[in-house]
Amino acid sequence: MLIRKNYPELGEVKAPYVHAVKHGDTLYISGLTAFATPAQQGDIASQAEAIFQQLHLIAASENTSLSHLIKVTIFITSFAQINDLRAVLFRHYGNHLPASSLVQISQLFSPDLKVEIEAIIAL
Amino acid sequence: MLIRKNYPELGEVKAPYVHAVKHGDTLYISGLTAFATPAQQGDIASQAEAIFQQLHLIAASENTSLSHLIKVTIFITSFAQINDLRAVLFRHYGNHLPASSLVQISQLFSPDLKVEIEAIIAL
Amino acid sequence: MLIRKNYPELGEVKAPYVHAVKHGDTLYISGLTAFATPAQQGDIASQAEAIFQQLHLIAASENTSLSHLIKVTIFITSFAQINDLRAVLFRHYGNHLPASSLVQISQLFSPDLKVEIEAIIAL
Repeated sequence: MLIRKNYPELGEVKAPYVHAVKHGDTLYISGLTAFATPAQQGDIASQAEAIFQQLHLIAASENTSLSHLIKVTIFITSFAQINDLRAVLFRHYGNHLPASSLVQISQLFSPDLKVEIEAIIAL
Repeated sequence: MLIRKNYPELGEVKAPYVHAVKHGDTLYISGLTAFATPAQQGDIASQAEAIFQQLHLIAASENTSLSHLIKVTIFITSFAQINDLRAVLFRHYGNHLPASSLVQISQLFSPDLKVEIEAIIAL
Repeated sequence: MLIRKNYPELGEVKAPYVHAVKHGDTLYISGLTAFATPAQQGDIASQAEAIFQQLHLIAASENTSLSHLIKVTIFITSFAQINDLRAVLFRHYGNHLPASSLVQISQLFSPDLKVEIEAIIAL
């Protein structure tokens, strides 16, 4: 069974995607950014913080938590502040580190954006 | 059970991959492009159109449809024509929007290519 | 059930991730590179070779082999030596080609690195 989910607290989606899709006991979460949050023009750490607030909210809406993170893919536009990003990741993961890929790409859909994170969570 | 699939209508694969791999009730589809289609040198919208023809064909071969799309990752080489791309996506998804990530990368395997889309479909 | 795995033979992980996470009969492997291997400053073929040694080791630790590869995503920093990379891939895949995406990104987490490969394996 396939369930398409938008979470109103994350704001309305106007582009061709939903926030997440549930397939069996796996939740696939779209690439999240700080767009339209107070951190949109912030540094990579504050943008990552804004993304993790969304991830926590999604996990809570699904009656789970980030302790169930399986895999993330992290797209960044610069490695300059990588230690700041890592500090945010360690803090939110706690003892539940996911599998992860991390690459620097050319641009995200707004020039303000410094990081996009997609995630897979076990339900 | 793992089933590796090539779809002859999509042309012969000469590189180290298959078009898709089936694992349980999940079909993982390789990054598809307009390479070797009439749209290879076209704009991003016509290239995306060519990709969706391949996705429809794969879904039909598996006795399903794009209404079963779970997740896509869209790699583009420029955001300049993003609205044209989005129009193609909305048209083909219909009411079945997938989870999605969208990033601008440096280059695809041919300089002609403006978009590559990988997908996960529920079987 | 979710099982987080580090493989000591791959070296200690100091960043916010684990080498792989097992979810049901699927193993999600983090983006692997030649970092901290003798190939770190080598060409793309030798770096890919170092990555496949890690993949073989992970598969063996899970009592399986790369014949169970489902999907890879290959991030490279240049297409200049693409034929060399493909030769390495064909050799390690044998008759078990996975679904695959291949994109050129701007940079990996060390400027030495020319390729990062993430993988999904069926258990």
